[in-house]
Amino acid sequence: MVTESFRPPVRTLMGPGPSDVHPRMLEAMARPTIGHLDPCFVGMMDELKGLLQYAFRTENRLTIPVSAPGSAGMESAFVNLVEPGDTVIVCRNGVFGSRMKENVERCGGTAVMVEFDWGRAVRPEQVEEALAAHPEATALAFVMAETSTGAWSPARELCELARRYDCLTIVDAVTALGGIPLEVDAWGIDAIYAGTQKCLSAPPGLSPVSFSDRAVARVQSRRHPVQSWFLDLNLVMGYWGGSGGAGSKRAYHHTAPVNGLYGLHEALVMLREEGLENAWARHWRMHAALRAGLEAMGLEFVVPEDERLPQLNAVRAPEGVDEAAVRAELLDRFNLEIGAGLGDFAGKVWRIGLMGHSARAENVMLCLGALEAVLAARDAPIANGAATAAAGAALAG
Amino acid sequence: MVTESFRPPVRTLMGPGPSDVHPRMLEAMARPTIGHLDPCFVGMMDELKGLLQYAFRTENRLTIPVSAPGSAGMESAFVNLVEPGDTVIVCRNGVFGSRMKENVERCGGTAVMVEFDWGRAVRPEQVEEALAAHPEATALAFVMAETSTGAWSPARELCELARRYDCLTIVDAVTALGGIPLEVDAWGIDAIYAGTQKCLSAPPGLSPVSFSDRAVARVQSRRHPVQSWFLDLNLVMGYWGGSGGAGSKRAYHHTAPVNGLYGLHEALVMLREEGLENAWARHWRMHAALRAGLEAMGLEFVVPEDERLPQLNAVRAPEGVDEAAVRAELLDRFNLEIGAGLGDFAGKVWRIGLMGHSARAENVMLCLGALEAVLAARDAPIANGAATAAAGAALAG
Repeated sequence: MVTESFRPPVRTLMGPGPSDVHPRMLEAMARPTIGHLDPCFVGMMDELKGLLQYAFRTENRLTIPVSAPGSAGMESAFVNLVEPGDTVIVCRNGVFGSRMKENVERCGGTAVMVEFDWGRAVRPEQVEEALAAHPEATALAFVMAETSTGAWSPARELCELARRYDCLTIVDAVTALGGIPLEVDAWGIDAIYAGTQKCLSAPPGLSPVSFSDRAVARVQSRRHPVQSWFLDLNLVMGYWGGSGGAGSKRAYHHTAPVNGLYGLHEALVMLREEGLENAWARHWRMHAALRAGLEAMGLEFVVPEDERLPQLNAVRAPEGVDEAAVRAELLDRFNLEIGAGLGDFAGKVWRIGLMGHSARAENVMLCLGALEAVLAARDAPIANGAATAAAGAALAG
Repeated sequence: MVTESFRPPVRTLMGPGPSDVHPRMLEAMARPTIGHLDPCFVGMMDELKGLLQYAFRTENRLTIPVSAPGSAGMESAFVNLVEPGDTVIVCRNGVFGSRMKENVERCGGTAVMVEFDWGRAVRPEQVEEALAAHPEATALAFVMAETSTGAWSPARELCELARRYDCLTIVDAVTALGGIPLEVDAWGIDAIYAGTQKCLSAPPGLSPVSFSDRAVARVQSRRHPVQSWFLDLNLVMGYWGGSGGAGSKRAYHHTAPVNGLYGLHEALVMLREEGLENAWARHWRMHAALRAGLEAMGLEFVVPEDERLPQLNAVRAPEGVDEAAVRAELLDRFNLEIGAGLGDFAGKVWRIGLMGHSARAENVMLCLGALEAVLAARDAPIANGAATAAAGAALAG
């Protein structure tokens, strides 16, 4: 039986999330816990809504953090917007499209799958064919930033299409929010969910979501009750005051994760200090530097350049290299975490994250230097000695 | 738009939860975030399972914290164990029995309600009548520690009954775990869920649960898929290694709330240091002191003495006193939070929590002294000047 405190090692987190958490955020998490109905806390909840509206670029009143991880955020979108018998067009170009299918089916709906190769973006032309072939569809669901492959799908075009075919949109932005341009209102997104442990660099455990008035109207006019009590937005709105303005009366629903929300609040204040566009630009700059270094090493990206996310870099492990052993050595010798491949890419691909506080020049250099050293010692077929200089030049340029 | 960090006031938390969080736990929450698949983190997950088995007094392999608050823990029990068409006997003696009913119905089941007065315990005789009248019932659900009233129901007797009628038991222990005797294995409990922010004094956001092998077999032999993907124990078990031993292979499901789990781990290490029986005794001792003081003031308890929880003390506000104004003044002048009444008790009752780190002599004294001062200043009909001495005598005795 364990009787000792857990003292985690200090890692550099460059996997698919969680990303490095800034000390300011960790310090915020450790502030004294107060009651979730304390007027001070309710005031902070109102601030959080405003800060999330800023990050999502929306005026949606129902913009809140769900009190559970991103996969619960996903579920909150589906259980509220899908009813038994509904048809939903689901785009699949990685792991999370499959999860969307599971969600639709567990809601009693039918998922019409539009399939794309792993590592490629969703293509609007194919989606339009599906929309045209399924006029009964009530929603279109897709992953804007596929964490399993690093593919970036054209959210604006897809939302325009959905609107034209009178479908609501459900957008997975778990890895997108804070890292790449995202415009909930301008693009007409109806339901969106994100994660805190990716480009916001807050600890995992919460899922920022936003729902348009059109989506809220759909929830309020459902024929069947929402199958989840915990995620029923009719109740969650009462708790967060989602349907009224700031300071509107709260109805007890569940107990909010008080200290987790302190952390998210601090993360969003820091995003606001930096400026959203500056954060997007930083992610792009760090990606360019990392890419220069990886390419100098001779490593190949999985995703074509024009469909590639800056914050999630999937590269193929060189021929003959035991990719898991390389990751273990990076962790062991350099306290550096990079991600493994998922699904079709397991055992073949590394996923290198540059998210939030991890998107920094020092992380780029550490990653390139350590990876090159480990690969060179294993006689992997890479070009040696040029990676960090290439990245340095990209950073200076 | 807010651009400042949130600096919470320092409160003393004596409401229905969250309770005071020990500085050691806050410090643990602020330790560096590491990856949720990091071998060090996986090792901590195994430790957590062992610590929770200790707290629940069980050897159930499926003993884990659900990555969401207590209401999601409740939902995890119902969505996994109830299928469409099932009948569940639900005892209602407060708010949380109604929530159980909602859960059963949203799973497509029928809830047979056994009703009790608010503020009273569940009585086995009445439950037995319902079990005998409904041989089709597959489960009995009840709240062991009703947070809305402070009533303590006889879990051991109710579980024996359920077993006799071949029903699984679903037990709400949100406010019970760590505060009063609870024996999952010895009492034959099949599914139990708890909160972290009550007698464990960790921040809110997680729900420790435990499922017996009999319950796991029921989940594994379901005719319908579990309606929640996020709470599907078949998947959650793969992530936590619930079906194998320590160190068994993990399958990615969601991203665990890393820092929240650091806090829970620390809370459980502290519980282990104190000893579970000692924690139960401490809750009882502090209750005896608080009760002596409240009775000396002339305040009346809602729940009869032999059905009363030590950790949740519901007392009637004196005639003519604006109870909300008193609570606001306690918060404002003394940074002391006590709870309001819920449901039938709204506006009439205070709920004074003595949970976890809040169950301390200094909290008892602060609460009695401050409450007496505020009530006296309002000319409330109470006996003045005897409360703290009575509590002091109880503590010394």
